[in-house]
Amino acid sequence: MDTIAAISTALDQGAISIVRMSGEDAIAIADTLCTCSLHDAPSHTIHYGYIKDPQSEEVLDEVLISVFRAPKTFTREDMVEINCHGGIYITRKILRLLLANGARLATRGEFTQRAFLNGRIDLTQAEAINDMIAAEGASEAKLAVQGIRGSIKKLLDPFLEELLDIIAHIEVNIDYPEYDDVEQLTNEVLLPKARDWAQKINAILARANSGKIVKEGISTAIVGQANVGKSSLLNALLEEEKAIVTDIAGTTRDIVEGSIHLGAFTLHLIDTAGIRETQDTVEKIGIARSLKAIEEAQLVIVVLDGSKEADQQDQELLEKTADKNRIIVYNKKDISQAPSKEGIWISAANGEIDALIKEIHRRYDEHLIVLKEPSLANDRQIALMMKAQQAMAQAITAMEAGMELDLVAIDIQEAYSALKEILGEVHREDLLDALFSNFCLGK
Amino acid sequence: MDTIAAISTALDQGAISIVRMSGEDAIAIADTLCTCSLHDAPSHTIHYGYIKDPQSEEVLDEVLISVFRAPKTFTREDMVEINCHGGIYITRKILRLLLANGARLATRGEFTQRAFLNGRIDLTQAEAINDMIAAEGASEAKLAVQGIRGSIKKLLDPFLEELLDIIAHIEVNIDYPEYDDVEQLTNEVLLPKARDWAQKINAILARANSGKIVKEGISTAIVGQANVGKSSLLNALLEEEKAIVTDIAGTTRDIVEGSIHLGAFTLHLIDTAGIRETQDTVEKIGIARSLKAIEEAQLVIVVLDGSKEADQQDQELLEKTADKNRIIVYNKKDISQAPSKEGIWISAANGEIDALIKEIHRRYDEHLIVLKEPSLANDRQIALMMKAQQAMAQAITAMEAGMELDLVAIDIQEAYSALKEILGEVHREDLLDALFSNFCLGK
Repeated sequence: MDTIAAISTALDQGAISIVRMSGEDAIAIADTLCTCSLHDAPSHTIHYGYIKDPQSEEVLDEVLISVFRAPKTFTREDMVEINCHGGIYITRKILRLLLANGARLATRGEFTQRAFLNGRIDLTQAEAINDMIAAEGASEAKLAVQGIRGSIKKLLDPFLEELLDIIAHIEVNIDYPEYDDVEQLTNEVLLPKARDWAQKINAILARANSGKIVKEGISTAIVGQANVGKSSLLNALLEEEKAIVTDIAGTTRDIVEGSIHLGAFTLHLIDTAGIRETQDTVEKIGIARSLKAIEEAQLVIVVLDGSKEADQQDQELLEKTADKNRIIVYNKKDISQAPSKEGIWISAANGEIDALIKEIHRRYDEHLIVLKEPSLANDRQIALMMKAQQAMAQAITAMEAGMELDLVAIDIQEAYSALKEILGEVHREDLLDALFSNFCLGK
Repeated sequence: MDTIAAISTALDQGAISIVRMSGEDAIAIADTLCTCSLHDAPSHTIHYGYIKDPQSEEVLDEVLISVFRAPKTFTREDMVEINCHGGIYITRKILRLLLANGARLATRGEFTQRAFLNGRIDLTQAEAINDMIAAEGASEAKLAVQGIRGSIKKLLDPFLEELLDIIAHIEVNIDYPEYDDVEQLTNEVLLPKARDWAQKINAILARANSGKIVKEGISTAIVGQANVGKSSLLNALLEEEKAIVTDIAGTTRDIVEGSIHLGAFTLHLIDTAGIRETQDTVEKIGIARSLKAIEEAQLVIVVLDGSKEADQQDQELLEKTADKNRIIVYNKKDISQAPSKEGIWISAANGEIDALIKEIHRRYDEHLIVLKEPSLANDRQIALMMKAQQAMAQAITAMEAGMELDLVAIDIQEAYSALKEILGEVHREDLLDALFSNFCLGK
């Protein structure tokens, strides 16, 4: 494998930057470019010196060089990390020097790709590394670190093992019917197993939905008439916010006004204009957009003025949101004559919004299960799990219809492939290995 | 010293971030927060593990932890660097965990300050580190790495030694007149020495000016009438540009249009509107601003149309720039009837600007001496060197007037102090040490 190099820290001024190499020449290249001797450097050691251009003899920077020797490295190849002063110019200059001396510029994610290709991590772990870097809140980071630690592989492995055993068993039955110390598998034995697997897959998919909510947040529309206290509620929610909001641009969801972290949950607030009957064309467009926002929202908070009776417009709002996952909130508790009415009463202006917060937690806390039990992390994984679900359902139908096991095996094989693909593993070789490992020695 | 912590890489999404600690508890704090054991870790070794919140037992991230033991570290204290995944959230989270477990948030530059206070680097080296981080071109980076390597200390040290010897000698003469195995210093001996020092100081200051030009670039105004080819020249210069221009915002010099790197030099282009007589108020303001820009420029490139005779406006332009450091350029060489005229002829539209580039190098290349010989790096250092220059001049005047050496010693002392201050060293103790080291044992 050729030796790749890249800048691994964010490219902006900082105290330190890291330029990283991986590949069989990594240590040798670094050795020719620095004043310290790395040739015999043990793995996981740090060396102080200067980076020097061997052509011009020019000293570029004072550095610390970390040496990692295969196979106990991120990529399982030899690796070198050069910690230089964190200037943009000098960091690029050192990268260019590496490229001029035998390294090749790494493509995006190529270090992680090598870690994957060399079996250091599976595909879900690679994805989790990405998720960790993009994480903006505590829950996302927690899910990511679970993923980095291989939670999905741990979740799927027992499953895969069972499926593989069955597939191998069926194939042996078919290919070596004369080999009679292997018991003949029947529908009666397999069907209950398949039903159990299907149930497990359903449970994983249900949890995956929770994972999406915890990881991606809840798109939330706050609706209500003008002067009902929507802005006050927004401010009160902002005060309630527990985590630090990043001050760096990046969220580019079009209609989202901003995100609020409430404990483990992120609410992505969707901009909504007031909704009422109008003849004005421009206003109509705005209202249409609001209705669409409500349509798309996963949660609608309907704010009503608790100090007044609900009027016609409130009624319309309630009708329009009737089939949504909504929380109806009565604001202005402090000046209301009748806060005895059933419901969630708040006083946004005074920051009294506990009842609303509590209701949000009541509805969503169950999803926090994914912080304790492993969950699929993204749509790719979910799509493959749904493929497995479908294949397993087909296998069950086939068995219920009394089909031959060699036909059922195709469905089970498909489910197995889908699960393997979640981990990014091609399976054909494994299958062969497992199959033949069931054979006797010397056969 | 308490233990300080900070994020040392630029805080944006990247593959890796570094959170750094320095102080006597650094290793112990890291040890309680990670799954690896750092307690007996040798210096300059790297350890793989997970960062864990000891309160909640929550695993935060997969990390590499570098351990550095005093005194061979940047700050000369125990240091730990935690390389985590380069997400903004996770990096801050790890920093907060360190702060919650005994570290204090470092102030700006506090690691370098400790390196300085603990004698690992002098003040000019600390400044050079900053220069390296801010460097945008090859020359700045070269000057910075010289500074990091202690070039200014090397420049000043022999100087300081000589001065210190003389000061000590004079003090011994004064305080111990009876101690006659120390020769009596006289004006005749000291005056030539002082003149020699003054000369050396002058040379250093001359070179410092070159250093400023190489490091900070040359503010350059391109002036000329409309349609004379200023934009074509600008484009041609951009094509000529050798170094990579940073694509990251940061330069905030108000009136500068952009910077061009020509070999070792950076030209900061100053925006100038056309200059001509006008009654229009707005245009007058623009012209006044242009004249000011010309006033402030270190180099003025006057572009004339070589295909025409100089007209009245050209004459005015030449008069207005007569006392500036200017290069007069005749453009449109390709369509000119009389390129036999003396001067620098170019064809900006065709990219033929060699004659101009050559002229710039002819005028400025001498300043490149600072890339070979050490030079002062900034206004602080230059101001102190000027203070030393002044003090030395006073000493010479005093000696020429036949003053007593104990009075002259005050001036020399002042020059010495100023030089010491460049390095950020208080000197009184050295002086005492040197003084008494001239004494015999047991006295």
